[in-house]
Parts: sequence; structure tokens; C-alpha cells
Amino acid sequence: MTRPVPGVRLGVAQAGIKQAGCDDLVLIELASGSTSVGLFTQNAFRAAPVQIAQEHLQVTSGRACYWLINTGNANAGTGVPGYETAKNTCGAVAELRGCQAAEVLPFSTGVIGEPLSPQLINDALPSACESLNEGHWQRAAEAILTTDTRAKVASRVVSISGADVTLTGMAKGAGMIRPDMATMLAFIATDAEVSPAGLDGLFRQAVSASFNRITVDGDTSTNDAAMLVATGCSGIAVETAGAEALTLFTEALESLCLELAQAIIRDGEGATKFVEVKVDGGIDADECDAVAFTIAHSPLVKTALFASDPNWGRLLAAIGRAGLKNLCVEDVSLYLNDVLIAVNGARAPDYTEAKGQAAMASSELAIRVDLNRGATSSRVWTTDFSYEYVRINAEYRT
Amino acid sequence: MTRPVPGVRLGVAQAGIKQAGCDDLVLIELASGSTSVGLFTQNAFRAAPVQIAQEHLQVTSGRACYWLINTGNANAGTGVPGYETAKNTCGAVAELRGCQAAEVLPFSTGVIGEPLSPQLINDALPSACESLNEGHWQRAAEAILTTDTRAKVASRVVSISGADVTLTGMAKGAGMIRPDMATMLAFIATDAEVSPAGLDGLFRQAVSASFNRITVDGDTSTNDAAMLVATGCSGIAVETAGAEALTLFTEALESLCLELAQAIIRDGEGATKFVEVKVDGGIDADECDAVAFTIAHSPLVKTALFASDPNWGRLLAAIGRAGLKNLCVEDVSLYLNDVLIAVNGARAPDYTEAKGQAAMASSELAIRVDLNRGATSSRVWTTDFSYEYVRINAEYRT
Repeated sequence: MTRPVPGVRLGVAQAGIKQAGCDDLVLIELASGSTSVGLFTQNAFRAAPVQIAQEHLQVTSGRACYWLINTGNANAGTGVPGYETAKNTCGAVAELRGCQAAEVLPFSTGVIGEPLSPQLINDALPSACESLNEGHWQRAAEAILTTDTRAKVASRVVSISGADVTLTGMAKGAGMIRPDMATMLAFIATDAEVSPAGLDGLFRQAVSASFNRITVDGDTSTNDAAMLVATGCSGIAVETAGAEALTLFTEALESLCLELAQAIIRDGEGATKFVEVKVDGGIDADECDAVAFTIAHSPLVKTALFASDPNWGRLLAAIGRAGLKNLCVEDVSLYLNDVLIAVNGARAPDYTEAKGQAAMASSELAIRVDLNRGATSSRVWTTDFSYEYVRINAEYRT
Repeated sequence: MTRPVPGVRLGVAQAGIKQAGCDDLVLIELASGSTSVGLFTQNAFRAAPVQIAQEHLQVTSGRACYWLINTGNANAGTGVPGYETAKNTCGAVAELRGCQAAEVLPFSTGVIGEPLSPQLINDALPSACESLNEGHWQRAAEAILTTDTRAKVASRVVSISGADVTLTGMAKGAGMIRPDMATMLAFIATDAEVSPAGLDGLFRQAVSASFNRITVDGDTSTNDAAMLVATGCSGIAVETAGAEALTLFTEALESLCLELAQAIIRDGEGATKFVEVKVDGGIDADECDAVAFTIAHSPLVKTALFASDPNWGRLLAAIGRAGLKNLCVEDVSLYLNDVLIAVNGARAPDYTEAKGQAAMASSELAIRVDLNRGATSSRVWTTDFSYEYVRINAEYRT
């Protein structure tokens, strides 16, 4: 169940950007005194709203009053006019609500390279303001979707010092998913009270274990942003409530981020499989990640997953090209779920095609690689590569 | 027209590895005194025949007498038994032809991870020997194919010191194509006389400008090898025939390699487009290559190419995630063929969707990126990503 977060109200409107008659604009109002932190795409072609959101966060030290989100147009690859558009919409919110333009953070998602009209957004702002409500998380989550097929919302409640602290978030994203940092839009709120530096640290940790470990197609978007606001409305300061409280809050935040991140993978473009790739026994996290992401991005592995074909040779080939120094291939073990497939650089003695096919048949599966040369592990989550992925991305603009 | 190479005879046979009734074994005989050089996959899971071919080349200083090639089974991911199999077939050739086992270089291509029976190959060797003939390049090129739809053979003749020097080569490969060095099988021969060191240098240069610059899916195979033999049968020593002769020979070798490499791309799995990605104005070759390969590997770019959709936002997004330091996106210009699409980080003023669609409509097109920050260029060749690519790779083993 989605729980409202005291201090956060969401308004939804139809701006006519995506298509007529559908919600495509969301305004999120944050209580006075809230602290916002954000993580943004590493793509050099950052969209105009990403640049402005980063600037506004910095000049206000995270004291944002509004997050403004549109879908249907990414306002990316739009040059100086795109920058002016995003600035203009922040100004319109400020004028309407009586705050500073720098206290408004803009976010856009949708087609890249098309001019975005500020007027469409500004004309719909009064309607968005009228609908501001604590209970609108689900409606807002639906209004920010692009090629997604379903809304992604989740909540956590933790009890700290005898009071409930709530965390609720929503995310969107189904393609162009390879977080170099945060590869989609995610908006998360809590009524806990957390210092700006503390909130930033907690959020970086949670994002690096969740949104940064999912990949659909290896393509990092120009618009990715993950935002977290702490309104403080619960009156509970988690940093001074003791070690146990901080752990509870941290775990809730991480599990919320992971649920939203995995929801993006489950809704991946054309996805028929939800796949965890786990690499154990590495010397360090970098080499575990290199193997995990090489497997997760391999078109040959992904098409075999789509066919439910236990073509483990493609897995070995992917491991072998991940760039690991002095990899002794005889040490590598490979599992599908709990089935040992390859060991000593070859097919496992007990392995049969029937066992492999049984493991591949389910819609959720785990690929596990044991490098057997260290104590580090990593996990990433990904999807298969289907006809539907090609169709969706071949027809996206038509 | 395919020209025979004096000193090189090719035999073809049916070993029953690929499927009954089809040629799948090729034996290439090299005249006494020939010099062989080779470049091999960088994949850590190198197939058994790749390991042995490298060992044999080394211990004989390139004095190979036979190249033995089978299709239908890669003999990769087969552990110690696979290694013994490849050794065994080299021994069988040596016994039959009266040479040393180390003078036989084995090559395999096909499914990874299935045991390969040496007996199938050894039983077919007498038939391959009987058919040894200088005129069998085309038949041999057909016999080494896997998912390829057509044979890839090419020839060059250069006149040096009043005599003809011939270069003829064949290649196979349609998927799992991303040369980290040489990502397919290629066998090239010349009757020129070249020193081992000279031949190695010329071949490395030619391969790095051709086979190492093509990509279908970014997947580097476990079995890639590119081989070049100089038989010396023309009596023409190209290294001592003057600078002009060496240039002629070098250019012929490079153009032959490029023709074969591009033939692999034209026959790419499910390919409907032949795409050149050219990056100009880079600081160094590494950053040009990073941009070119990021574009060439992007599933979103490749599906847009399939749809003939000039979705240049995906090109900008790919450039932006290529990892270039301090890239000023306002400096980047983007062209489809001769059509300027984006400039100053946004759509070019004169660009229209109609112009973009016209450029995308042809089956051959060029994507050109000008980084405008240096004097270095690079080119790679790739294909689009179609339903047919998914089908071929989903059904490969069924």
C-alpha cells in the first residue's frame, strides 16, 4: 500500500505534451524546511532540466519547495532554447506559488531533440496546483510514465523512538536504462528529519546498491535523476535517534530503492525475463561489476535468455571478454539458479541440457559466476532481448 | 574473380560435424618454405584450437605446412578433452601427410561447449586430401560458414618488378562480431616473399584498419583468428623491391582485408543496413574509437537504424555516454550522410525530418560525428538490430 508522506503533496495535470487527454505533468510540493538531495546522469549531453535542477539544488543548498515533472518530451538536445524553456517553467511555478525560481527543480522525460513549449506546461500549472494532495502518489506515478506499462510506487514505514517514519517513492523507466549513476526518474520522500550531508550520504549508498545496478540495454539517458526529500514532518531526527534507528532507516531506504529499481527491470521494454546476475569470488568490486555488466549487456546472452536456451557458451564468452587481468578460466564456475553448468573451463560432469532448460524455463532466474579468486561479490539485474524490444524501439517515434 | 595463389592448395570434405551432407572441413596446404602469421582473439576463454595454433606458430617460427579448419563446433569451453581433440587432429594430418604435428594449425568455429569428436575429422581427412586443389577457394569459403548466408572471398593482384603478385583471402563471421583484435576466421594467402617479421607487421597494420573495426553485436568470440601466409612462390621479395612495391603490396593487403571485413558486416545476422560510423575532430584515436563503438553498439541506435528512423537524440545520448573527458557538447556536430542534423548541442536550424528520413532510407549510410576538438579520426562499420537478429540468435541451437 502506498503511504502518504507528511509534508509532501502531489498535483497532476494534462498539459498536452504527451498526447491529448492524458496526465503528463506532475507538481510535487515540499513542506517548508525540507531538504532535497539528488543524483543525476553522467551523460555529457545532460538535458536542460538536469542542468538547472543541479544548479538550483546547489544555490539553495537543497531547500527546494517544488519538483516539476513532465513526460512526453525530454527537453534534451534542445540547446539554449531548451534551457530557457526549463528556466521559464520554474519561474512560472515561482510566480504562481510565491517562492523563488531557484526553489523549483525541473525534470523532463520523453523524446530527445524536440522543442518543448513552456506555454503548454505553464498553462497547465493552475490545474496541477488545484489537485495538490498527499494521496496522489499513484496518480503521479502514472503521469510520469513513457514506454513503461505500469506505475512503480512503493512505501516503507519504520518505527523510530515510538513514532512512525514513512518513506514513499515512485520511479519511471523501461528503456535507455543503464544507470551510470541513476538511469531513470525516481522521486522519493520521507518525513524523517535528516541533515543535508547525512541525507546525501544515505542516498548515494542506496542508489549505488539499487538504481545503479540495473540495466536493460546499456544506454544511459540524458535525463536521469533520482531525488530524495526529507520533510522532517514526523519530528524524528534519525541521525540522533541512535544507531539502531539509523540502521532501520537506512535499510528501509535501500529496500525501497531496490524495489523501485527492480520494478523498472520487471517492466523493461519487451522483457519476458527478470534476471539477476551475481558474480562471486572476485578480487574487487570493479572486476565483479565488469563481468556482471558484460553478461547483462551481451546481445547474444540476452537473445538466448529470450529463447530460454541454456546456451552457456555465450556466458563463458562474455566472461572471457570482460577484460579481467590474468583470469584463469579453469577456476571459473557457472551456475543457472542452483544448477552447476560449467567448471574447469568446460561443461560440468553432472550437467545435462534438461537441467539447464528447466532452470531457464522460469520467468525469474539467476546467473551466478564464481571467479574463485577473491572475496568480493556484486549483483546486477537485467532483462532478456525480445522481438518486442526491437518493435518498441523501432516504432518509438511513429 | 578469385585468383588461385601459387603454393596454396585447398581441400574440402564432409565430416558430419555441422550436418549430414554438407562440407564442414577444410584443409589448406602451404608450400614448403611458406611463412604464416596470425592474430587471435583476446577472449580469456580462448578455444582449444586457438591455443594450439598459437603454440604451433611459435615453436615452428611460422613454418606451418597445413591449416585445418572445421565448422559446426567451436571446440571452445571444452576443457582438457577439447585440447586433446585439437592435438589429435593435428597429429592425424601430420601422419597422413608426412610432416610434424606442430606444422599443422587447427581452427574451429560453431557452437561453444559441445564436445568435438576427433574421429569425425580424422575420418574425413583422406577425402579432404584427395580434393586438394589451388582452385578451391570458393568451395572452401562456403565450407567454413556458420550463420553466414554467403561465402566471402576476395583477390588482389599487384604488379611488382614486372611480375604478378597475388593475394587471395576468405573469411567467415556474421554474429558474435566485435574484433578486439580479429573477430572471425580469415585465411589470406599471397605468393609474395616476405620475412616473418615484415609479414607480421604488415598484417597487424591491415587487421587493425579492417577486421578490428567492424562490429555486429559487441560480442567477441572465443575462436577468432586471422591468418596470413606468404608462400614466396612468385619469387618476388616485396621488402627489397623498392618503396613503391612495398606500398603497392601494403595497400593491396589492406584493401583485401577491408573488403573481407566489410563483407562480414554486409552479411551480419539479420542486417538490413550497412553503416559506417566516422568520428572526426578527436584528440586521439582512443576517444574517436570510444565514440564510434559506443554508437555502433547502442541497441537504441541500432533499432532506430532498423526502423530507418532518424532518431538523432539517441546518437547524442550515445556520444554523451562514451566517457570522453571534458566533452563540450556545444562543439559537437552530427551528420547523416551529408545532412547536418545537430550542431551546438541541438537540432541544426536547416534540418528537417524529411531530410533525415531521406538519408536513413538507403541500405548503406554514414553516421558522422565531428567532435571539433582535435585532428584525429576513426571509422568503424556496423549493422542495424532487427527482428531477424533476435530470431537467429534465439533459435541458433534449435
